[in-house]
Amino acid sequence: MMQGPAARVDAERLWQLHQQLARHGATASGGVDRQTLSAAEIGAGRGVVGWARDAGLAASTVPAGNLFLRLEGGDVEAAPVLTGSHLDSQPSGGKFDGVFGVLAGLEAAQAIRAAGIALHRPIEIVAWMNEEGSRFVPGMMGSAAFTGAASLDAFLPVRDAAGVSVREGLAALHAAFPELPSRPLGRPVAAYVEAHIEQGPILEREGYTIGVVTGIQGKRTFRVTVRGEEAHAGTAGLRERKDALLAAVRMIGALDSAMREGDDVVKFTVGRLDVTPNAPSVVAGTAVFSIDLRHVDSATLAALGDRIPGICTAHAGQCSVNVVELTSAMSLTFPETITRLVRESAAALGIPALDIFSAAGHDARFLHAVCPTGMIFVPCKDGVSHNPRESATAEDLAAGTRVLVNVLMALASR
Amino acid sequence: MMQGPAARVDAERLWQLHQQLARHGATASGGVDRQTLSAAEIGAGRGVVGWARDAGLAASTVPAGNLFLRLEGGDVEAAPVLTGSHLDSQPSGGKFDGVFGVLAGLEAAQAIRAAGIALHRPIEIVAWMNEEGSRFVPGMMGSAAFTGAASLDAFLPVRDAAGVSVREGLAALHAAFPELPSRPLGRPVAAYVEAHIEQGPILEREGYTIGVVTGIQGKRTFRVTVRGEEAHAGTAGLRERKDALLAAVRMIGALDSAMREGDDVVKFTVGRLDVTPNAPSVVAGTAVFSIDLRHVDSATLAALGDRIPGICTAHAGQCSVNVVELTSAMSLTFPETITRLVRESAAALGIPALDIFSAAGHDARFLHAVCPTGMIFVPCKDGVSHNPRESATAEDLAAGTRVLVNVLMALASR
Repeated sequence: MMQGPAARVDAERLWQLHQQLARHGATASGGVDRQTLSAAEIGAGRGVVGWARDAGLAASTVPAGNLFLRLEGGDVEAAPVLTGSHLDSQPSGGKFDGVFGVLAGLEAAQAIRAAGIALHRPIEIVAWMNEEGSRFVPGMMGSAAFTGAASLDAFLPVRDAAGVSVREGLAALHAAFPELPSRPLGRPVAAYVEAHIEQGPILEREGYTIGVVTGIQGKRTFRVTVRGEEAHAGTAGLRERKDALLAAVRMIGALDSAMREGDDVVKFTVGRLDVTPNAPSVVAGTAVFSIDLRHVDSATLAALGDRIPGICTAHAGQCSVNVVELTSAMSLTFPETITRLVRESAAALGIPALDIFSAAGHDARFLHAVCPTGMIFVPCKDGVSHNPRESATAEDLAAGTRVLVNVLMALASR
Repeated sequence: MMQGPAARVDAERLWQLHQQLARHGATASGGVDRQTLSAAEIGAGRGVVGWARDAGLAASTVPAGNLFLRLEGGDVEAAPVLTGSHLDSQPSGGKFDGVFGVLAGLEAAQAIRAAGIALHRPIEIVAWMNEEGSRFVPGMMGSAAFTGAASLDAFLPVRDAAGVSVREGLAALHAAFPELPSRPLGRPVAAYVEAHIEQGPILEREGYTIGVVTGIQGKRTFRVTVRGEEAHAGTAGLRERKDALLAAVRMIGALDSAMREGDDVVKFTVGRLDVTPNAPSVVAGTAVFSIDLRHVDSATLAALGDRIPGICTAHAGQCSVNVVELTSAMSLTFPETITRLVRESAAALGIPALDIFSAAGHDARFLHAVCPTGMIFVPCKDGVSHNPRESATAEDLAAGTRVLVNVLMALASR
């Protein structure tokens, strides 16, 4: 029989909060389009801050737009234990990616508070700004700026496809939360634990409810700009053309073949391609595409990524090409102190847990550099994510939250 | 020494009108973005109608949004001789494509009127709606509807990328011209002659000022829709993916190779590609691309075009693909009655002329089906068109207009 604060986690309440949050940016296909710093994401943030206040938590923000919800500890000066994730989504996102980590933290804090437990350290739930990186590139800006991995000033001029800057987006966010105190970036954190759906099929397939995340797969991202020359589709001879779209097609085909040559573990994705002027009877003048390359082995990731500029240049034909690396993150392993705590917390609750490596990137990557960090995964249906069909069960979400409760209590009592 | 109405063509005035029209939709790169039924194109139309009134011409429109400017003839019941072209541009268009045909007609009518010549038939200058087909697909809607090649009703629901329909665009156009009488589609036309820049390098290279257009290259256009499934770029295995962008890349690569196999005359262009959700870390769920295929030989055009659906299907992999043919226009030859008239008019003025085949499509294609039709080309610099660098000289534009004057007088006197 489950006892203590973990028993106070309310699966139905947690599920309902997920459904309510999904109204912000809801799409016709049943998913959400809640890109970072949009009105929809700011609305979701207002909802979460309201619920946190009702639960007796104190909300604050930082210049990078992260939201913090604090359960005070016995020692108000002690560095807090941090948990959370993000509220932004891909343009065609689902109801659980990111949201679960924030709501699990909120539910865990409520459970601990309702049990009347007094902890040494404060616990803070965080919603990081721009984890997804679809509206503004690169992703994980909020955690990068908070941990000092990057300077906020470097992100402020970044613009979305409509020309709106991060600076303007942050101004809109802060205007929507005039009552929140702003705290400085980079304050000390005792530990960070992030709950998240797996975004892969392993837990479901193997029959486990909890994934003890042992590390995060490495990732390199690039932006490739191909410049040709606009011409009339009916008159310009094929040999004389500088067709930027056709050159991009050749590059992407060659890159895909080259990246697949090795093992079966590599992930290579061109998810975005923008053509100018993008008119049926005009030879394309410019084509810009994204590359997302991931591999669990850092050496392989480094070697494959280093081949990209050469392959692009080799297939440029009469066009020019410019390859810019946007992010380079090698694979990392979380400390045993945190993974053991997650494993033991699950065992104590009688919840089956499996060690698992994260194929997706998370804000935990940046926190890992400044404090003991780990993650808790729960299954998602068919491994589908970044898709309106993304799905998880109320019971699995509650189980992950119960493990989180015990992990947070252990970390905050030290 | 040039005499008669052709001598009254004012090269400087004609040039200045081109420059003034280029203000409508002017872009930073020195070209124009004046897509059909946009505020910029409607503004250009208002400018032309104003100049026509000053020149004593009567303006009218039709439900398909074409503008007509009429120089009355001795027999007001006689079918008019039609000349003109279009005022819309590609998103990255230049100052001369289409515009020259309309302004040459206007200048020619002014020259004839100023010379006090009384002609048997009326002459009407026309600006056809949506020649370019970049905002609304397919192009040449105005001439298709006017000649009965297609029903206007079929075009009305077509929407642009922002969701605006042709019906709404036409309503905006007609609202901007409340004073213009609307005449029915499909009234009789005695003949049609369209002046246009060559959009190719031949006249300039060979040293001729006038191209006697003998026909128009055939063209088939297609829209290819590839459907896959959105997935997370970091977690979805490459073998399990249904990557719509990658499938489109394979199709375009294979199509390009196949279309190049034959002769050197074929024109194959994928100018537009739209990816959904178009986010760097999401495997693409949908990719839609355009195909523009042209060939001077109708049999070759038919054979190449017929291969397209099979090639797309063969490279779809785990995605589904749907190929829709949007337009199918075989190559055509203008009647000798018109080409001879153009040739003789140039010769009488002492302007060097060359028989030339049009690689680009024009509204003259549809008029060819309902009346004796021909075209007059003038050189454009380096053969560049559909590009802000598109350029022509004031003298060549005036020369083309002088030939047009004599052709129109001959046709209208019968």
